[in-house]
Amino acid sequence: MLIAFLLYEGMTALDLVGPHEILSRLPGAKVKRVAKAAGSIMTDSGMEIVAEYSLKDVESASVLVIPGSGSANSFRNDPEVLDWVRSIHNTTSWTASVCTGSLILGAAGILTGLKATTHWAAMDRLKEWGAKPEFERIVQDGKVMTAAGVSAGIDMALTLSANIAGQRFAEGLQLGIEYDPQPPFHVGSPSKAAPAVVDALRIKFAADFEK
Amino acid sequence: MLIAFLLYEGMTALDLVGPHEILSRLPGAKVKRVAKAAGSIMTDSGMEIVAEYSLKDVESASVLVIPGSGSANSFRNDPEVLDWVRSIHNTTSWTASVCTGSLILGAAGILTGLKATTHWAAMDRLKEWGAKPEFERIVQDGKVMTAAGVSAGIDMALTLSANIAGQRFAEGLQLGIEYDPQPPFHVGSPSKAAPAVVDALRIKFAADFEK
Repeated sequence: MLIAFLLYEGMTALDLVGPHEILSRLPGAKVKRVAKAAGSIMTDSGMEIVAEYSLKDVESASVLVIPGSGSANSFRNDPEVLDWVRSIHNTTSWTASVCTGSLILGAAGILTGLKATTHWAAMDRLKEWGAKPEFERIVQDGKVMTAAGVSAGIDMALTLSANIAGQRFAEGLQLGIEYDPQPPFHVGSPSKAAPAVVDALRIKFAADFEK
Repeated sequence: MLIAFLLYEGMTALDLVGPHEILSRLPGAKVKRVAKAAGSIMTDSGMEIVAEYSLKDVESASVLVIPGSGSANSFRNDPEVLDWVRSIHNTTSWTASVCTGSLILGAAGILTGLKATTHWAAMDRLKEWGAKPEFERIVQDGKVMTAAGVSAGIDMALTLSANIAGQRFAEGLQLGIEYDPQPPFHVGSPSKAAPAVVDALRIKFAADFEK
């Protein structure tokens, strides 16, 4: 079972590493980290992560995972990556995204007519690609599973793991990473946070998405 | 404000990347990823992450974060790393660990007489270093903040961020990563999971910790 993660300059590290920590431990998993060019990728928090494979090295996958970032929407102008995403999607059992990774799926034409989600601040952008946005933590439509912002990739990967390897196995993965979350504040979604906090982030992210 | 993360071969990527995603966005944060030798570090899920600095390059830090892994306990036999951890700790405002990273703090002598936590399967090991183990998600004793297994680093880093930059700023960080967790199963700690799932992991981890 080949699991391909798309890496790219400016990506958000946790979008990748949350699901990677979980999916890489599935039975029989062979993981490939793939980028336009193989090598070290600079994430948007300054940490470099290595992609061992370039796009041309990977022609199919059982599972494709696309992480997000403030720069994800810029891939609407990158036919090389969109063509690769589309061609891999044609071979997958599951195609997944975290955060604004769904905008890359959208730009590749994969979300047309499908229910999908993304980071709360990017929700309107999904409509531009013909998707039906849902304000949920995880949205599944057929073989496409999209997650909300950044940390939602952990919930998504556990859900996907249960689909692939059964609930009991997924439970072991959840206990292994001691995923019994206790967020210190009750502010993880815009309906819960203070309006000033929400607005400041919305303005910041809106500017990112124009790039 | 210099934030130093210790990287090492066999570390667990999410132990690092959860806190890194959050702490790297603190006002004025300058982050250094540090390893015995600078270069690419292989994590225990097969993902390579780059440490730009070697131990000798970093002589002080405002915040030190030590991630864990199944191999963390092997540092009890590595005086070079333990000496570095101890000397950096002498300069910090905060010293933090995720998961079994606390065993490295313990082996460095930093937890003697302190309340601390670690991954649930390693809790007994803390006593070997004179710590007072507490089965909590986050434990603070003075300037030392230890977190439970893997994913607990996210909760720890948000708590630490509130201490450093104020609650309102930390709320923005939590909303930015949309940390409104919805774990698919109610099994994130051993008291909640099925005994067979707990026992299988306990046996696996116990073998790791002997290395």
